[in-house]
Amino acid sequence: MTVLPVQPLDPAAPQRRVPYAPGASLLRPYVPLATALRAGTTTPRDVLEQCLATMRRDEPAIAAFVTHDIKAARRAADAATARWRAGAPLSPVDGMPVVVKDMIETIDLPTQMNNPIYAGWSARRDAAAVHALRQGGALILGKTVTTEFACGNSGPTRNPYDTSRTPGGSSSGSAAAVGAGMASLGFGTQTHASTIRPAGYCGAYALKATHGALHVGGVTPLAATLDHLGLIGASLEDVWASAMVISRLVGGTPPHPGISGPMETPAARRPKRLVRLATLGWDETPDTSRAAFEAAVTRIAAAGVEVLDAGGDAEVAALEAALREIGDFANDLLAWESRWPLASYRNHGDGMVGQRIQDLLARAEGMDAARYARAVADRERLRAQVAALSSRTDGFVMLCSSGPAIQDHGFTGSRNYALPWTLVGGPSFALPVLAAEGLPLGLQLAGFADRDADACAVAAWLRDTLLPDA
Amino acid sequence: MTVLPVQPLDPAAPQRRVPYAPGASLLRPYVPLATALRAGTTTPRDVLEQCLATMRRDEPAIAAFVTHDIKAARRAADAATARWRAGAPLSPVDGMPVVVKDMIETIDLPTQMNNPIYAGWSARRDAAAVHALRQGGALILGKTVTTEFACGNSGPTRNPYDTSRTPGGSSSGSAAAVGAGMASLGFGTQTHASTIRPAGYCGAYALKATHGALHVGGVTPLAATLDHLGLIGASLEDVWASAMVISRLVGGTPPHPGISGPMETPAARRPKRLVRLATLGWDETPDTSRAAFEAAVTRIAAAGVEVLDAGGDAEVAALEAALREIGDFANDLLAWESRWPLASYRNHGDGMVGQRIQDLLARAEGMDAARYARAVADRERLRAQVAALSSRTDGFVMLCSSGPAIQDHGFTGSRNYALPWTLVGGPSFALPVLAAEGLPLGLQLAGFADRDADACAVAAWLRDTLLPDA
Repeated sequence: MTVLPVQPLDPAAPQRRVPYAPGASLLRPYVPLATALRAGTTTPRDVLEQCLATMRRDEPAIAAFVTHDIKAARRAADAATARWRAGAPLSPVDGMPVVVKDMIETIDLPTQMNNPIYAGWSARRDAAAVHALRQGGALILGKTVTTEFACGNSGPTRNPYDTSRTPGGSSSGSAAAVGAGMASLGFGTQTHASTIRPAGYCGAYALKATHGALHVGGVTPLAATLDHLGLIGASLEDVWASAMVISRLVGGTPPHPGISGPMETPAARRPKRLVRLATLGWDETPDTSRAAFEAAVTRIAAAGVEVLDAGGDAEVAALEAALREIGDFANDLLAWESRWPLASYRNHGDGMVGQRIQDLLARAEGMDAARYARAVADRERLRAQVAALSSRTDGFVMLCSSGPAIQDHGFTGSRNYALPWTLVGGPSFALPVLAAEGLPLGLQLAGFADRDADACAVAAWLRDTLLPDA
Repeated sequence: MTVLPVQPLDPAAPQRRVPYAPGASLLRPYVPLATALRAGTTTPRDVLEQCLATMRRDEPAIAAFVTHDIKAARRAADAATARWRAGAPLSPVDGMPVVVKDMIETIDLPTQMNNPIYAGWSARRDAAAVHALRQGGALILGKTVTTEFACGNSGPTRNPYDTSRTPGGSSSGSAAAVGAGMASLGFGTQTHASTIRPAGYCGAYALKATHGALHVGGVTPLAATLDHLGLIGASLEDVWASAMVISRLVGGTPPHPGISGPMETPAARRPKRLVRLATLGWDETPDTSRAAFEAAVTRIAAAGVEVLDAGGDAEVAALEAALREIGDFANDLLAWESRWPLASYRNHGDGMVGQRIQDLLARAEGMDAARYARAVADRERLRAQVAALSSRTDGFVMLCSSGPAIQDHGFTGSRNYALPWTLVGGPSFALPVLAAEGLPLGLQLAGFADRDADACAVAAWLRDTLLPDA
């Protein structure tokens, strides 16, 4: 096991720029290899060695990892190889190389949360979702960089397509590792925008399932009613199979029983209608990214899907208006709910938590329970507004972020496209089907709460329809 | 700081038997000292030294503690003493000596959960409720014995009134320490019966507030929709003030805003009507304990309260019938929800968790999501049945346990009286106002969800009415 201290950004690290094209990316899908794995024409050990070769070559530039245990990963890959050979894989993810955001507990590797308080700390157990994937045969290759406690200072990770840019955050390392082909799946979390945004920036798929539908036990809490487990993957099949293995083996956060759906990724289904959303993010989106989104919408419509928008539909216009007002109550929810544990971390002494966390605590300390209750009620209204559209649309399309990854390492990017569905609590998928400025630009498909499989079928259709090589 | 390894029961430990009389117990109330603390006729340091003297004398027989830090407690008591002297206490619990069940995280002391996996382990933060009480000036004297992970093997703790008897569990050490006068407040947890039962056995007050109304952040999860923070105290004022300091400073488990109510303990209020409940526990209750309960009900009625029971009221009869059927779905809820983290602990190796935990996991592994969903629905029906009585009664009275503490150290007693309100999720109070066989016999007052202050006012009236010296 190798524990690497979390370092600030290293200005002397090698730089790289890799031209991006959707469908010809660096991703290393695993679940789609099932036929080859069954036939023995590839093995889990082969896939792992490909990941490790990529790591050796690219990790110095990308800095996605905090900890890894290559020896243990090879042992687990060999065990999975034997199971596939015997025709008895434990699940579709048996042998899949997985990385875990360093906010999520692992029984073997430390969980350090990018803060010195937790240097070398071990939870001595696996988080529920990690436990489930391991039971399904997946191998845990290492822990990945998070921003401080998933809400503070950025880490050293850089975008795999352009190291002068952020990978996004707070699930920085998981998105960068999956985007770069160093793993097929990365665990992340999303409390405001921390899975969909970095997945979009790094050219990866992702699923932020219905709130509660993927067990968050053992994910260090930040804001309980906002915290989601995020799955960042090399293919839609990788994220779906992982979600279903978790659902079957540990369920959702009680009392949520978990996602109900098939283990197989739902077949692509052309939606009848989709709502396109601008959100507050559109104002910040550069023309090249707007054009890429418009072109996608044009192709969606050309394929026979009715696309509703604020211009033509009063109910959608009302939703867009509501989405422009969510920032304030989202900040209240985050601040109030994260007082604990953040205030306890602050008690370790002056300067032990960064300025962003101090600011968040100051906001919470200016609040009272009534203001928190108003924020909860504001969110309920938003949820009702979205639910009211459930008979009129099969889902919502928008970008994952306001343009490709920004050239900044201190800021992980705008939350404006990813925040809405965190609050709505329904499923949302990041799909790496667009590009702008030669960089990944994620498309987001959002659905209705507890209809994750329906949303996945639409996401599969969007992928098939929009990917150049499909 | 002294870390004591959790030992099995020591048969060579000194034995003791202290005759019990309600109202003349060993309890050491703190919040009721406010006038004396303000006047300087006693100080937090004085109270702490009294607790320490009791510890020195009685801890060898009782074995309530796993860890303590007497030096730190004295420092905190002196700081509180200075604040009271300056007329500026931080809260009503400023200087209160508190012990913490070893399932609950503390920033300074290890959290060991009575299992070798967690020997010496530190969470490096305070649980939300511990954080709040410390902010309110309370001092943490030590960590107390829990059964293994709050659901497995018993610890070495013995009943303060008769060391041949169990203190109850799983909050064994907190109940024994408070019952014996070694602290004014003990943090416990209740997932089935683990606060109300041991409080009743040890002659202490307790509050298991509305589910979610006291923040469980940093309490090691067992079964999320059943887990409650429990407050075991030397007086009703001690538990109420603690609950309100927690509510004001960290709130409930999000999205619950916390208990709404006054910081002062609600004034005693005579109820108009109460329901007496037998539950399944009555069948197991010896005659002497039944007689003590009947005498209490007679006095309640004599004071002008109408008492409804199954014999005279069809709705209560239906509730009693329902309460006889809860054991099975309660076990399903516990088993399914505790799969994680228990299964991850089991992965540490053969024999690392005890037989009870292995049995619980086996039950979970025989379940599916549909059976769990049925258990959730069964609980919802029970809750609706109780809520339907809210216009007809001010609360429910029953025992805390089927008789006084049993003469057994391998079993912490029947759950049948405490389990119902765990499932109902409303507040329940343990009141040390009865005795049987010269031992404590707790009376339980249960109320309606999110009406904790109303229930407290009735509990205060019951205490005033039933305590011999009142």
